[in-house]
Amino acid sequence: MTCTSAYHDQLIEVRRHLHTMPEEGWSEFTTTAFVIGKLREYGYEVLTGTKVINPDNCLGRNPKVVEAGLAYARANGVSEELLAEMEGYTGCVGVLDTGRPGPTLAVRFDIDCVPVTESTEGDHLPAKEGFVSTRPGLMHACGHDAHTSTGLAVAHWFADNKDQMKGRIKILFQPAEEGVRGAAGMAASGVVDDADFFLSSHIAMMCKSGEMSINPYGFLCTTKLDVTYTGRPAHAGVEPNAGRNAMAAACNAFVQLLGIARHGSGMTRINVGQLNAGEGRNVIPSKAVMKMEVRGETGEINQYMYDSAVAIIKGCALAQGCEYTIEKMGEAVDLTNDPELVAVLKDAGEAVPGLKVCEEPMNFGGSEDATILARRVQAHGGKAAFFVLGSDRPSGHHTARFDIQEKDLDTGLAVWANVIGRILG
Amino acid sequence: MTCTSAYHDQLIEVRRHLHTMPEEGWSEFTTTAFVIGKLREYGYEVLTGTKVINPDNCLGRNPKVVEAGLAYARANGVSEELLAEMEGYTGCVGVLDTGRPGPTLAVRFDIDCVPVTESTEGDHLPAKEGFVSTRPGLMHACGHDAHTSTGLAVAHWFADNKDQMKGRIKILFQPAEEGVRGAAGMAASGVVDDADFFLSSHIAMMCKSGEMSINPYGFLCTTKLDVTYTGRPAHAGVEPNAGRNAMAAACNAFVQLLGIARHGSGMTRINVGQLNAGEGRNVIPSKAVMKMEVRGETGEINQYMYDSAVAIIKGCALAQGCEYTIEKMGEAVDLTNDPELVAVLKDAGEAVPGLKVCEEPMNFGGSEDATILARRVQAHGGKAAFFVLGSDRPSGHHTARFDIQEKDLDTGLAVWANVIGRILG
Amino acid sequence: MTCTSAYHDQLIEVRRHLHTMPEEGWSEFTTTAFVIGKLREYGYEVLTGTKVINPDNCLGRNPKVVEAGLAYARANGVSEELLAEMEGYTGCVGVLDTGRPGPTLAVRFDIDCVPVTESTEGDHLPAKEGFVSTRPGLMHACGHDAHTSTGLAVAHWFADNKDQMKGRIKILFQPAEEGVRGAAGMAASGVVDDADFFLSSHIAMMCKSGEMSINPYGFLCTTKLDVTYTGRPAHAGVEPNAGRNAMAAACNAFVQLLGIARHGSGMTRINVGQLNAGEGRNVIPSKAVMKMEVRGETGEINQYMYDSAVAIIKGCALAQGCEYTIEKMGEAVDLTNDPELVAVLKDAGEAVPGLKVCEEPMNFGGSEDATILARRVQAHGGKAAFFVLGSDRPSGHHTARFDIQEKDLDTGLAVWANVIGRILG
Amino acid sequence: MTCTSAYHDQLIEVRRHLHTMPEEGWSEFTTTAFVIGKLREYGYEVLTGTKVINPDNCLGRNPKVVEAGLAYARANGVSEELLAEMEGYTGCVGVLDTGRPGPTLAVRFDIDCVPVTESTEGDHLPAKEGFVSTRPGLMHACGHDAHTSTGLAVAHWFADNKDQMKGRIKILFQPAEEGVRGAAGMAASGVVDDADFFLSSHIAMMCKSGEMSINPYGFLCTTKLDVTYTGRPAHAGVEPNAGRNAMAAACNAFVQLLGIARHGSGMTRINVGQLNAGEGRNVIPSKAVMKMEVRGETGEINQYMYDSAVAIIKGCALAQGCEYTIEKMGEAVDLTNDPELVAVLKDAGEAVPGLKVCEEPMNFGGSEDATILARRVQAHGGKAAFFVLGSDRPSGHHTARFDIQEKDLDTGLAVWANVIGRILG
Repeated sequence: MTCTSAYHDQLIEVRRHLHTMPEEGWSEFTTTAFVIGKLREYGYEVLTGTKVINPDNCLGRNPKVVEAGLAYARANGVSEELLAEMEGYTGCVGVLDTGRPGPTLAVRFDIDCVPVTESTEGDHLPAKEGFVSTRPGLMHACGHDAHTSTGLAVAHWFADNKDQMKGRIKILFQPAEEGVRGAAGMAASGVVDDADFFLSSHIAMMCKSGEMSINPYGFLCTTKLDVTYTGRPAHAGVEPNAGRNAMAAACNAFVQLLGIARHGSGMTRINVGQLNAGEGRNVIPSKAVMKMEVRGETGEINQYMYDSAVAIIKGCALAQGCEYTIEKMGEAVDLTNDPELVAVLKDAGEAVPGLKVCEEPMNFGGSEDATILARRVQAHGGKAAFFVLGSDRPSGHHTARFDIQEKDLDTGLAVWANVIGRILG
Repeated sequence: MTCTSAYHDQLIEVRRHLHTMPEEGWSEFTTTAFVIGKLREYGYEVLTGTKVINPDNCLGRNPKVVEAGLAYARANGVSEELLAEMEGYTGCVGVLDTGRPGPTLAVRFDIDCVPVTESTEGDHLPAKEGFVSTRPGLMHACGHDAHTSTGLAVAHWFADNKDQMKGRIKILFQPAEEGVRGAAGMAASGVVDDADFFLSSHIAMMCKSGEMSINPYGFLCTTKLDVTYTGRPAHAGVEPNAGRNAMAAACNAFVQLLGIARHGSGMTRINVGQLNAGEGRNVIPSKAVMKMEVRGETGEINQYMYDSAVAIIKGCALAQGCEYTIEKMGEAVDLTNDPELVAVLKDAGEAVPGLKVCEEPMNFGGSEDATILARRVQAHGGKAAFFVLGSDRPSGHHTARFDIQEKDLDTGLAVWANVIGRILG
Repeated sequence: MTCTSAYHDQLIEVRRHLHTMPEEGWSEFTTTAFVIGKLREYGYEVLTGTKVINPDNCLGRNPKVVEAGLAYARANGVSEELLAEMEGYTGCVGVLDTGRPGPTLAVRFDIDCVPVTESTEGDHLPAKEGFVSTRPGLMHACGHDAHTSTGLAVAHWFADNKDQMKGRIKILFQPAEEGVRGAAGMAASGVVDDADFFLSSHIAMMCKSGEMSINPYGFLCTTKLDVTYTGRPAHAGVEPNAGRNAMAAACNAFVQLLGIARHGSGMTRINVGQLNAGEGRNVIPSKAVMKMEVRGETGEINQYMYDSAVAIIKGCALAQGCEYTIEKMGEAVDLTNDPELVAVLKDAGEAVPGLKVCEEPMNFGGSEDATILARRVQAHGGKAAFFVLGSDRPSGHHTARFDIQEKDLDTGLAVWANVIGRILG
Repeated sequence: MTCTSAYHDQLIEVRRHLHTMPEEGWSEFTTTAFVIGKLREYGYEVLTGTKVINPDNCLGRNPKVVEAGLAYARANGVSEELLAEMEGYTGCVGVLDTGRPGPTLAVRFDIDCVPVTESTEGDHLPAKEGFVSTRPGLMHACGHDAHTSTGLAVAHWFADNKDQMKGRIKILFQPAEEGVRGAAGMAASGVVDDADFFLSSHIAMMCKSGEMSINPYGFLCTTKLDVTYTGRPAHAGVEPNAGRNAMAAACNAFVQLLGIARHGSGMTRINVGQLNAGEGRNVIPSKAVMKMEVRGETGEINQYMYDSAVAIIKGCALAQGCEYTIEKMGEAVDLTNDPELVAVLKDAGEAVPGLKVCEEPMNFGGSEDATILARRVQAHGGKAAFFVLGSDRPSGHHTARFDIQEKDLDTGLAVWANVIGRILG
């Protein structure tokens, strides 16, 4: 097989290129075009548009952001033909069938950035080396540039070695992971329903450069919601009774939402992170919008929180004579790695010289929508796992000076190659 | 015609007798039996039970109070036959048809007492003269003993003079005026639906002995409600999520109820006077009861308050997953005296020597459920009015030392006789 | 005396000029410069800046709006010298002393516009005649252009006739009447403290062209407030307990504010017209801003509402561990015209041929901060009154097609001249 | 040493006697008198009254219950002299000094019953054997009769064997464990401040007959509170503004209390189990009482809940212009057994033939105020532990058919003797 070190330059070059041009969730048209081009170059069949995103399950997709992403893609010279193929939806899946009987393996990499303005200070490596973000307000500060670059290197390596492989690989480039939005639509497209195995990974969490963690736990189940109340305006002095006070619906919902009973079986969380309501000082407010989220230690507990919240939101609309809408903006679930794949990961990791495999359970302590895809595969009888690749970082995720150690990209690719070799080799 | 002064002794004697044996709303079996006896003695056809009270519209009728009233009646020797005739409902209507063509006049007197313990101090006239209440905790501290006594004297006088009259009189002895509960059921029985004229009166308000007020305004529309939320108990430590918190439904309803928007067209009021909720300290409360009321300057505004309250009560049940019931406990509406009857009252009052008729509008500033009957008559095309007979009182209504001037009873009867003479004479 | 009809052209010309260049409250630097120029031309001593505005009592003055107003003034060629004289505060007072013993009369005209985009339709007179607003989003849609024009015509006429007058006139050109913001600072400067008489007026309300109303009532007392809660952000998933939830303070304050008990003595109102709170979806909100107002039928009732609101705002800060600030953004009080001045207005109005003087009380039904100045004069022993000059308008106040009848400006000036002649003549 | 089996009859007899005469917390005068009599018989110095209960830290002591307990004691023939010694406070401590140098060991047994009516069905052993509760509504349904009986047997055994012992024993008979009320006052008396070791136990939880658990965890920290708001009544129709609405303070506090932010470091709970507020339907409520509790996984988290609750309670008083009081009604903390004593318990348990010692951590999952005493001893440098003695029970704690297996009393005494022998032997 081709040695993974042969892909070192590609890994760095692609990661740095993507780092300069970060794109927000659901606007990654230029990134997707770049990925499609590479996949086709490597000989992959590429699915995109509604073939990999079910529009009915598309969460948190802001039309203005989509428009801006399209404009950016056109400015970058992405062809109208390719844009038409995408049908307005970002992300794609590269499929390569070895022609030999064997399992189907789905691997997933996420491609979007976060709304952070990158540091341009001289000691921030991307600035020093000239691949800092060219888009103020947007930055690959969560390592998805590294994920995408790794995904393309995996694609390249697999294509180069496909004669020694069996079965089929599906390489998912998922949009809009931030806000846990993109996976639901990709899962609902059915693109992983035939997968026997599913794997995904995150970089630079929980462990250090030179380590990998194969038993993460504590993926928080969460649902993100936007709630809109619509009432009826009225002059607050002359005829307050004629109004339907949307702010009253929202504020009373808020106080009840925070008061949802704790759950006896595990951790719960609820937050309304934004509330904007009302028009003029002397007008009964006719509109109120809440951006909120619930969490639960398990899917069942998260569902309890969601159901309780919906009842309150409805009840307050009824109480105040207002209309309401609830829009699901994001969703992630919990995940327990299947032991079969944990064993594969252990074996594959230990085969990488100098890499320490951390077997002890480590608390992921956050949400990750790869879990949606993983659970979809498990629900269809497949096996799924998520692992974390350590990488020392100078600053936390989602901060202006976040960075990874590029040498760890080589380690990551080696792990992926070893894992794929053990499943499809 | 018989001079009304002939009834002086009767007026005093009956009033004092009733004063000794006050009965709460819906428990006035002994009083009703006494009234029925007198009416039949005077030659009236008497209707009672469900002929004059529609059980479906019976407000604020507490079964325990009814039971206690029946027991008291039996102890007082009221016959089982008469109790059977009453069918468990207090109040009655005496009807006397002159046999001569003419209008139907309905006049209404209320018969219940209030839950006040009467003063036994030597300078309190009923104590001094030996007709103080024999029932601690109950007292005719709102003058309904005087009303009932006047009603019987009116009945007597009319019977004595019926040969000089035409048409028909219906004399209503209404239960449960306190809490504005009794009129709704009496109105719903249809007993005043054939009345061409309706009149009622209160004593000792707004003006002094020797005066009467014929243009009272400001009858507050009000609805009294009992709201019960039923949830599901749960151990607050072990499994709080399993509960349905009735206290949460009630408290959140409370805060929204107080916040019902003011009305641009007039005064509104809302109060939750009692809230009792919960069981043990460490149990999610499964029951909550609120005793509340709304008011409005007009029937429309009161309805706005009621509708807004009901929406909130429902909405909070939905929000907290609880069941709810709303029981209407009392109701009064507003009233504008018909000018035709105001003119009759003025003329009748001025014909009473020494009586000053106050024509200027005077603010009644309270609720009175005679308005329900009056509005029912008006709705059927009849004319209605309410007047107030002045009487100096040593202490306010509903206080332990309330009293009236008995001499004013003669004046009152004279007014009634003059009014009836002008309508049916 | 000079006939007021001599000022017809000036009235129209000035009004139309001002109409083209509307300026929002506290930004009326170009307007003030224009007024100062005219007043000095007519021989008035002119006070401006902190001589007529007390910065400590300046309500609702947005620094950004002030900056934009200064920039607009510079673009319009207003001299730096004049801007320096204004000290950043708009509005001015012209003083003319006749040198003869006599009373001091203060008259007040307001100069700001409203944030409405004017209609450019051909049948809208300002559009048709070419004096439509040149500033989209801003329009003299409340008639203050007419007020200012009238004030300058009054100034001109008085200067022309000062030899026939005694005492002293102070002509106030008040900024920021919209939102009832400007009068408080002008009153606190003390500029009307020596006034024996105070008069002000509004155009195009309550009565028609050819009428004036001299007994308006129902000036609503109101206080406008901006409330800011500051808490502490925290990750809503990881450590919610570390936050101090400013949105919780605001929402709980909101529900309690709406629930402030009605007042037994008269109308109350409360509204929170805007609430903006929070940052990210998964961050405990650390900031919340409410724009609110209270009203009362009398000053005392408005004070009750204000005091109750402040207690709630404080209490919720304490309950949620947040800091708060309350900024008064506007204020108006009630007013009862002094009978002496009502008599003068009646006499003066009736002396204008063809003008009908409406003496019956008419409900103003809104707030007007001339009341602040009027009550200040009354508090110092002077007499005050407010009248309304009728003018047919094609569309309501604060709408895109609002307009007045320019011929009524002549009538208005005639009334003012007659009034001034009766007081200082 | 005397074999513990010699005390079998005493164990059964005392337990059954106490079972017939259950007494509620703070009313256990008859029980205390019985215990004192026995302790003195065995040669103990006995401390009672304020020597062992600090009145300032007495939680949840209802004067009416105390009075009823005194009356019951007098009816049972308890001498006035002994009652005087108790000073109105139940519970006592027996002290026996061996006269030989050695450590001080404090052991604690609780003596109160629960408000449950015992089953009289024939298959309920106490009914069948004739020692069922003679007091309807009261029952030893939590095993404290067994605890007290064990305590007296321990006292007897130790006195019989004191010549083979060193140091000093203090045997605490604590009142009012139910509602976690009694330990705080006993701890505050200082009676365990000189203890080098502290031990306590509960029967019939977590494990079966023939087992004991020496590593219980999950003692829930909790604080029980009664909150009273006092406002000012007013007629809800006539002058609602004159009221200070205590129900508004309570309901708004309630909604905020439920909304206290979850804690990132562990479980929290909050419940308002009872809320009673208001007087008449048309009166602004002037009084409101809430019975509530907070819990936390650790003392620090419970303190966070308590502090947050107090801030809310205060803030709502301020917001609504009401007075408030907070009365602490009960308190328990968490406990980690000291390893030294766990080792002693293991050794002592294993020395009892046929007893299985469960070493694995078992979740106590409730509150127990022995923790207050244990933590007091630890705070003074002593060691403390709590263990559970298994006993099969036909029905759960606090139910009408609760019972223990009396044979397990022998096992329990054997454990205690072994433990004491290892510490003081």
